[in-house]
Amino acid sequence: MSVFEEVESQVRSYCRGWPTVFTTAKQSTVIDESGKSYIDFFAGAGALNYGHNHPVLKKALLDYLAEDNIVHSLDMYTAAKRKFLSRFRDIILTPRGLDYKVQFPGPAGTNAVEAAIKLARKVTGRELIARFTNAFHGMTLGALALTGNAMKRGGAGVPLGHTVTLPYDHYLDGQMPDFLWMRRLLEDSGSGVGQPAAVIVETVQGEGGINVARAEWLRALADLCRENDILFIVDDIQMGCGRTGPFFSFEAAGIKPDIVCLSKSLSGNGLPMALTLFRPDLDIWEPGEHNGTFRGYNPAFVTAATALEEFWTDSTFSQGTSGKAGLVSDRLEQIVGEQAEHGLSTRGSGLARGLVFENPATAAATCAEAFNRGLLVESAGPEDEVVKLLPPLNTPDEQLKDGLSILSESVRIAIKETA
Amino acid sequence: MSVFEEVESQVRSYCRGWPTVFTTAKQSTVIDESGKSYIDFFAGAGALNYGHNHPVLKKALLDYLAEDNIVHSLDMYTAAKRKFLSRFRDIILTPRGLDYKVQFPGPAGTNAVEAAIKLARKVTGRELIARFTNAFHGMTLGALALTGNAMKRGGAGVPLGHTVTLPYDHYLDGQMPDFLWMRRLLEDSGSGVGQPAAVIVETVQGEGGINVARAEWLRALADLCRENDILFIVDDIQMGCGRTGPFFSFEAAGIKPDIVCLSKSLSGNGLPMALTLFRPDLDIWEPGEHNGTFRGYNPAFVTAATALEEFWTDSTFSQGTSGKAGLVSDRLEQIVGEQAEHGLSTRGSGLARGLVFENPATAAATCAEAFNRGLLVESAGPEDEVVKLLPPLNTPDEQLKDGLSILSESVRIAIKETA
Amino acid sequence: MSVFEEVESQVRSYCRGWPTVFTTAKQSTVIDESGKSYIDFFAGAGALNYGHNHPVLKKALLDYLAEDNIVHSLDMYTAAKRKFLSRFRDIILTPRGLDYKVQFPGPAGTNAVEAAIKLARKVTGRELIARFTNAFHGMTLGALALTGNAMKRGGAGVPLGHTVTLPYDHYLDGQMPDFLWMRRLLEDSGSGVGQPAAVIVETVQGEGGINVARAEWLRALADLCRENDILFIVDDIQMGCGRTGPFFSFEAAGIKPDIVCLSKSLSGNGLPMALTLFRPDLDIWEPGEHNGTFRGYNPAFVTAATALEEFWTDSTFSQGTSGKAGLVSDRLEQIVGEQAEHGLSTRGSGLARGLVFENPATAAATCAEAFNRGLLVESAGPEDEVVKLLPPLNTPDEQLKDGLSILSESVRIAIKETA
Amino acid sequence: MSVFEEVESQVRSYCRGWPTVFTTAKQSTVIDESGKSYIDFFAGAGALNYGHNHPVLKKALLDYLAEDNIVHSLDMYTAAKRKFLSRFRDIILTPRGLDYKVQFPGPAGTNAVEAAIKLARKVTGRELIARFTNAFHGMTLGALALTGNAMKRGGAGVPLGHTVTLPYDHYLDGQMPDFLWMRRLLEDSGSGVGQPAAVIVETVQGEGGINVARAEWLRALADLCRENDILFIVDDIQMGCGRTGPFFSFEAAGIKPDIVCLSKSLSGNGLPMALTLFRPDLDIWEPGEHNGTFRGYNPAFVTAATALEEFWTDSTFSQGTSGKAGLVSDRLEQIVGEQAEHGLSTRGSGLARGLVFENPATAAATCAEAFNRGLLVESAGPEDEVVKLLPPLNTPDEQLKDGLSILSESVRIAIKETA
Repeated sequence: MSVFEEVESQVRSYCRGWPTVFTTAKQSTVIDESGKSYIDFFAGAGALNYGHNHPVLKKALLDYLAEDNIVHSLDMYTAAKRKFLSRFRDIILTPRGLDYKVQFPGPAGTNAVEAAIKLARKVTGRELIARFTNAFHGMTLGALALTGNAMKRGGAGVPLGHTVTLPYDHYLDGQMPDFLWMRRLLEDSGSGVGQPAAVIVETVQGEGGINVARAEWLRALADLCRENDILFIVDDIQMGCGRTGPFFSFEAAGIKPDIVCLSKSLSGNGLPMALTLFRPDLDIWEPGEHNGTFRGYNPAFVTAATALEEFWTDSTFSQGTSGKAGLVSDRLEQIVGEQAEHGLSTRGSGLARGLVFENPATAAATCAEAFNRGLLVESAGPEDEVVKLLPPLNTPDEQLKDGLSILSESVRIAIKETA
Repeated sequence: MSVFEEVESQVRSYCRGWPTVFTTAKQSTVIDESGKSYIDFFAGAGALNYGHNHPVLKKALLDYLAEDNIVHSLDMYTAAKRKFLSRFRDIILTPRGLDYKVQFPGPAGTNAVEAAIKLARKVTGRELIARFTNAFHGMTLGALALTGNAMKRGGAGVPLGHTVTLPYDHYLDGQMPDFLWMRRLLEDSGSGVGQPAAVIVETVQGEGGINVARAEWLRALADLCRENDILFIVDDIQMGCGRTGPFFSFEAAGIKPDIVCLSKSLSGNGLPMALTLFRPDLDIWEPGEHNGTFRGYNPAFVTAATALEEFWTDSTFSQGTSGKAGLVSDRLEQIVGEQAEHGLSTRGSGLARGLVFENPATAAATCAEAFNRGLLVESAGPEDEVVKLLPPLNTPDEQLKDGLSILSESVRIAIKETA
Repeated sequence: MSVFEEVESQVRSYCRGWPTVFTTAKQSTVIDESGKSYIDFFAGAGALNYGHNHPVLKKALLDYLAEDNIVHSLDMYTAAKRKFLSRFRDIILTPRGLDYKVQFPGPAGTNAVEAAIKLARKVTGRELIARFTNAFHGMTLGALALTGNAMKRGGAGVPLGHTVTLPYDHYLDGQMPDFLWMRRLLEDSGSGVGQPAAVIVETVQGEGGINVARAEWLRALADLCRENDILFIVDDIQMGCGRTGPFFSFEAAGIKPDIVCLSKSLSGNGLPMALTLFRPDLDIWEPGEHNGTFRGYNPAFVTAATALEEFWTDSTFSQGTSGKAGLVSDRLEQIVGEQAEHGLSTRGSGLARGLVFENPATAAATCAEAFNRGLLVESAGPEDEVVKLLPPLNTPDEQLKDGLSILSESVRIAIKETA
Repeated sequence: MSVFEEVESQVRSYCRGWPTVFTTAKQSTVIDESGKSYIDFFAGAGALNYGHNHPVLKKALLDYLAEDNIVHSLDMYTAAKRKFLSRFRDIILTPRGLDYKVQFPGPAGTNAVEAAIKLARKVTGRELIARFTNAFHGMTLGALALTGNAMKRGGAGVPLGHTVTLPYDHYLDGQMPDFLWMRRLLEDSGSGVGQPAAVIVETVQGEGGINVARAEWLRALADLCRENDILFIVDDIQMGCGRTGPFFSFEAAGIKPDIVCLSKSLSGNGLPMALTLFRPDLDIWEPGEHNGTFRGYNPAFVTAATALEEFWTDSTFSQGTSGKAGLVSDRLEQIVGEQAEHGLSTRGSGLARGLVFENPATAAATCAEAFNRGLLVESAGPEDEVVKLLPPLNTPDEQLKDGLSILSESVRIAIKETA
């Protein structure tokens, strides 16, 4: 591993917790060069909801590449892009009563967020974006201003402005009526906080520590935005594409955001791809007003279209997620129960689950022990106090159980170690 | 094409000038679904320096994918990443006496720029970045603040600050000694412009209209930065990877930037990938202080490493570029000469070439006519007054000549049309 | 009045509600050029706590000017300045156990605020200032960023940043525990709100609508600041110099701010003068780092020193204020009681009193009717829904009663008019 | 002087160079408490153009105060304000063909600048203000962003944005055609510098080191602004009220700015007062959109009106300034000639004159020696390398000569000391 240490920047991070060299991966299993295999409860931070190298996606990709189809096309029209747009419209948008326009804002989630807030500001002529405590929206300067993490914000090197921070659901432990603060800021011309262009929210905050917003809270937020002529943006980059069950994580709340950001598992197989979706009447972009070199990476369109066909033409897949979510949730509750005296708790939605520790060191020790025992899990939350579970959504039940057994044992050991 | 019009956002741009649906592509030829073929003098805006679907790169990619090697790995260690880092060190860095640290800042060029200016600000504790007129560095908020184009800046929706603008080489037509303004700003404590953290510059401004900085200008800029303890950043996203001949476009000037941004042709085959390189002593990042989901797209590492092995182990490839550059340059001079009374001119470096029109409408008409005749070229410059030529670097001479003949004829017709 | 309409800008304001030309004034009475006299319950927005043309202050001023003493001296040493500093130390600071350093930041309150936040940022190296809903701190760009009023903020023409807004006491009607939000923002590294350099607060918000912070709320705020290494700034520009009873309005809460802003009634007779006071260890200014032409207006030093000698060497004056405050408060309660069915309420501290109307139009009509009847009162609050009473502190009881009778009758008529 | 050291902040500045306590002052003479008298070539940094305690102004002030006329009136209508507005219109505006609206923005010059840029931004809807190298416009946050001095800017504690810096006349020593850079920035949509709301300029930069703009340069700047729909603001705070001869310093260039800032000598006798003047069609302020407690300090209106009547009803006074300017200029040239080998030079306009030293230490030593010998002069310029002469405009010729003799001798000694 010396070349990494010699050549790669200190900014590298995941490799520090998982000090081995990975080589191959299939479905929910990753193998390192020593041949050791790991159950993957990390799934590319939610970018691999359908698992590694899914055979159907892989075949579509290989076929496309083998025939010299066009790979890189910026925002030219291509057959692969047309197919993706058709499938996305027919399989995802139309059945859900959504008529969003689709923008390809660049290859990464942070590009989708940058495009969303640019458009919100352009449409409204306002500068302020309301964001939530412990949000994560990306690392480019516009998205970073919406991100909560102090260390990551500190990296900006310039003040991050044009935002107002609001408390996420549960943030004040129910000690203030929902949205009282936001309502007062909006209704009072002396509050000093102007009308935002938009509110941006995750339905479940993954990086923030698997914080789950209640459906009624999301509905009230959507209503408040509509009443106050504020655009309502859902960043569904990590929680979309089925992570919580339905394709869009906000479906369960019965809301229709004005703007939606998608990325991560969108391409299905880990290829860089992102979308910004918005109401047709918001589509006031000038041609080329937002652009980028890797907006048109056709192999990603191919695997994305294939994934839609494979997983989203009926409800089988999302029901499967719900079933597996129950399995995981039950086992986590059991772990919590077993360690009752150590103040563990669990929370989550669908297959985004968190095991919350009082002592962040215990969370870290759990991840380390899990790695040694062949399970990949990472921590999240402001103090990295939450062990975050994001297994591929089609992980077989047996493998889920195996992973959870490793986790259970790792927790037990970690608690001892950090007592 | 109705699905594009129905579903895709108005922000789409290239497709407007090239209203057809492309399907396959090989080397310097692109084919649309009617079977019409086009010579590609655009090359993915410089992302396809080795042409479309180069067989060696394609084979490496297919082999990698077929064997269930890991595709998406964030910044975990993988065998593919290790190979890329080794090749990059051995083939690119070491022979050039460079000992840069390598950061994977995200999949697109704009991520490389965001990481570069974050790091420059962090290292120096200063906020100001000096940028040049007609620069293009990307569309996320940090990079956009460094970009010159008024329309693109307007899309930000918030003020773009923490920068100072300096005149690029030739900008004032030699009516001011080079760097006089910059020197005065720096030496005068009453100038109101503080010491920048860094200067960011392109050696040739592609989007800005193929503006070429002289080697002595670049050297003087590098010297001025060093004397004033300002970090010197070269954005080599479009001009690197051999576009002007050598791997790094700044090699010709004999300078060693403190920070370098690479992307576009880096992966060799149009796969999203970007790097930020910097002097080892600048590597003060905290682990994870800058991150992103698609930093570790292994297929891009594979094609990138293969491209280095294929094109950069000796000087054959860069010499080929120089030869072809002469061919293109000569033919463009001829076109300019033929249209002497219409005020054309040409400029460029290596295979980044521009044909400059007095009337932007003529440039637009040239591109349109070229498209009809089977040649893909786009315009650039603040008024889109420059027809920009960025052919794949390995385009056969005959095909270059064919393309230039189409171009010549298109110019002739365009001048008539817009007279 | 035609010259005003012809020559003076539309920005003029108070003259619109009081459309007459004033000529002379004595104590709490102002006379216009028609000879009509008005009881002044406005007192220069709190700049005339000792009334108009107080004979002792006037004599000191005339004597000083008559003898060709130096008038304008920037920050040179003068005898008048020395006397002021001595008196301020001996009469105000030392008896209260305060050892503040004194800065002359310029002639107006807004200068005192600008100096305060500059210093807080310089001392801490942080940029963020926490401010409160409905605060008013001035109209220059730094102070305006701390001001709540939307119309006034809109006048900035640029985004007003580097602040975070917190709810003032009572703002959320007790529906959230005091400072819960602020505590969470501070303790949670994922809140996205960094550590402020300082908190700036008025003990009673005058322009904001006579909102009175409880002593225990102020103490808790001061404690919270100290615990979190945040500087605690009291803007005592309107409420200082005895408005609420003691010289500093914060004395009643038993707190010692790190920085204090004074102006308005400081000179005693309406002469422009302001101070920024701070803990000696915060005095890290470079010589001249903050300056201004009218920092050294010696006639103001003379009247200011005289006012300290006249009113503040014992507790008579502040006790007088308390007595008159009771008188005013009782009468206002009576008015509220008389109009019980119209939803009036009253609040205040010392001789800063507000009569709060449900319908802002009624407040406006009250002020207009009072003017007609010979009483000057203005409205305040985000919707101008509060009739604000700031009479000179030494207004004779009889005149207070006369003014309150006019007010009572004006309220009665205004309620009818706006029913 | 112990009370100053004990109580006053370290920010104090002038007193450091002039370590004595001043008591009285008359015309161009200041006396300290030891009885030593000083010739004043500083004149309150230009705030005392008519000298200290001018008998006519003093009498008007004493009469006004003695009769209990109203002192403090915010922006209510008063007889004193009416008289000032009438006189200002009749004596200053109308004869010069100016129909400016008059705003009272607060008591200090920095308030006049803040109001000017607020209004420019409001009228144009743009944020950017163009400012010049070595400008000084004040110390509140909006004005400070326009100020060049690095130390003073550093005091802001936050980034100072929304401006673009341009080279003042002579800044590049004639090595670039005037306004070439500004023209290119404006005409090139790729410059990255948008259209400013306004340009703000001093005709002579006092704090910047007595830098004098040529009349043709000012005219070209005014033309360029008009052609590009940019508001043209002259900050005449230090150079107005006759400092360079005519009432407005820009009269000599034959230009009519869109907005003018006045303060310093406006009140005539050192009383805090400032004005912002603007074209009537720009007067789109909302009532109260910019306000402040000390906008209506009536004694200043009285002395200001009296000064207009006394000095500006015919050309005698301004001609006197021109004569004295010749006297001073000749003597300074003589000093320069005497010290030819030490690289002195002199520059200036009217009675704003500078003696420029190669070695800043010599300028400092000159000021110190002059103080010892009974002459008050201060240094200016980015390195404090310029001894700045701003004597009262009505200083008798003999006293001017006496002062210049002291200066000459001080220069001689200072050169020796710092050789």
